[in-house]
Amino acid sequence: MQDTHISLAHGNGGRYMRELIEELFVRYLANDALDVQADAVALDLSSNELLFTTDGFTVQPLEFPGGNIGSLAVHGTCNDLSVAGAIPKFLSLNAFIEEGFEIATLERIIKTLAETAKEIDVRVVAGDTKVLRRGEGGGLYLATTGIGVRNGHVLSMNNIKHGDVIVVSGPVGDHGIAVMMAREEFGLQADIYSDAASVLNLTRAAHQFPGLRFMRDPTRGGLATVCTEIQRATEMGVHLYQSKLPVRDAVQSVCDMLGYDPMYLACEGRVVAVVDQADADELLKQWRQLEEGEEAAIIGFVDINRPYVVMETEIGGERIIEELEDDPLPRIC
Amino acid sequence: MQDTHISLAHGNGGRYMRELIEELFVRYLANDALDVQADAVALDLSSNELLFTTDGFTVQPLEFPGGNIGSLAVHGTCNDLSVAGAIPKFLSLNAFIEEGFEIATLERIIKTLAETAKEIDVRVVAGDTKVLRRGEGGGLYLATTGIGVRNGHVLSMNNIKHGDVIVVSGPVGDHGIAVMMAREEFGLQADIYSDAASVLNLTRAAHQFPGLRFMRDPTRGGLATVCTEIQRATEMGVHLYQSKLPVRDAVQSVCDMLGYDPMYLACEGRVVAVVDQADADELLKQWRQLEEGEEAAIIGFVDINRPYVVMETEIGGERIIEELEDDPLPRIC
Repeated sequence: MQDTHISLAHGNGGRYMRELIEELFVRYLANDALDVQADAVALDLSSNELLFTTDGFTVQPLEFPGGNIGSLAVHGTCNDLSVAGAIPKFLSLNAFIEEGFEIATLERIIKTLAETAKEIDVRVVAGDTKVLRRGEGGGLYLATTGIGVRNGHVLSMNNIKHGDVIVVSGPVGDHGIAVMMAREEFGLQADIYSDAASVLNLTRAAHQFPGLRFMRDPTRGGLATVCTEIQRATEMGVHLYQSKLPVRDAVQSVCDMLGYDPMYLACEGRVVAVVDQADADELLKQWRQLEEGEEAAIIGFVDINRPYVVMETEIGGERIIEELEDDPLPRIC
Repeated sequence: MQDTHISLAHGNGGRYMRELIEELFVRYLANDALDVQADAVALDLSSNELLFTTDGFTVQPLEFPGGNIGSLAVHGTCNDLSVAGAIPKFLSLNAFIEEGFEIATLERIIKTLAETAKEIDVRVVAGDTKVLRRGEGGGLYLATTGIGVRNGHVLSMNNIKHGDVIVVSGPVGDHGIAVMMAREEFGLQADIYSDAASVLNLTRAAHQFPGLRFMRDPTRGGLATVCTEIQRATEMGVHLYQSKLPVRDAVQSVCDMLGYDPMYLACEGRVVAVVDQADADELLKQWRQLEEGEEAAIIGFVDINRPYVVMETEIGGERIIEELEDDPLPRIC
């Protein structure tokens, strides 16, 4: 491809668009099932129990310590399949590219996206690109839609019972703070990396437990949002212990400095599991044996008697965790 | 919902986002399989032969005579499934909404999208919304990803043979010109409506013919692009007759005035079929019995002897149809 920047002609259905697709997207994403000549591709799936999800990505900046919008677009959608109890198999990819966007950056992002998909054995089999007029995009927006095959019993917030235990697979807030720090406007420096990663090993391990009720990855709105969603769906409370909540020191420092609460910050590689108390210790043990679950922790329980999300603080007080209203960090995923 | 315009808080994973989804998206899109609480939804499909496709939508203006970006987002993706030989079943929907976008307009568009899906018996079962910073979007961008079940023999450009006949299901260019005229910048008036519509009745009828080789809906890049794609894939030529090409008088007038070629203009409700000459007349007859195929026409044939796309003009001359380079009308879908 001769061009260095995206023009509207790269979105027109003609030669420039074809070359962009052939020489950039297909070059990285090629696989047996991907057919850019086809209007729709056939999926070879041995199971009828399919799971389906979609996610859009508008993170700013597009590249940050620990990942970029490409790895995020794979993990975000595949993690939604994983926590729902599926093995991710196929993805579609929509790219909305702003006129004038640097093709070298686009290439870096699509290369990362392709590598990320390959690592977790997921194939991008359908795609579409549109070019946005200069000034009508943020460089690049992506959407990925995923199909997975069910891998175990059906999970649902409706299964949750009084006394069930809340387990989180690792420290919260790394992704949110890593992306925020990558924004030049803050002028801060710290060794904080996004936790963006596949949760599939974690969810597969958890799914072995018949007492597993529900899992979710705490992305936008963070752990607080998962808990308030559980509270609203079950009409039972969630009691959390601040002293048990894993938060990295560097993340906590930035939060203290800028007034953020790690409970509301996005993770992109963590799982929250709600599990029968009989299985909780063994689940924690198994998660801790995995590299991605080394810092897993039991952080609280479901409480029918107090239908709020309550955080018991380290000094013995309590505060109510409310549903997120004002966004501490927009454009984080 | 109290708000009249979109704010960044409508994208933050908290209360405002939940209300936007519950009170607007779910209100119109509700169906048995849609579960906004789930990370991924289960699909109930009786067949393993699934087809999968995705499309992004950035049309400007968002509303135009004959449709809006919502109806387009359903038809665009479902038509890709239909021409590939599937019955569309499920859609996912991504909405990228610009901060400040009027919620009444969003509601009109999602309502149309829901009605369009219902008309063709397709269910939107997964979705995601992201809010773009003011000035970093064109109001609304959509992406839809579709799953369909195969309905007949496998179609492919590789099946195309010398002498096969090219049939188009109706006049070309209506969508492109209708959208262009809706842009205030042109200051023109004409009774031209987008052809945006489902092609499923047309593709089902065509699929009964064992001699059907391939179908495509001529969207971005128009009929010219379908023909140059056939030429490149088969290394055979396509010979077209200008006198047979259905183009509405009003569309031709605007094209003549502004120097557009209808061959390159987008349709959103037409099908181009390549069919064995033995089946062509009967296919044409069946299409013409359908309301959406009343103006169908045989417009040319595949020619191994001259590996170009050639248009035989009404006065007996010839011109070569080249692959689209400069886009006559960007942001048409």
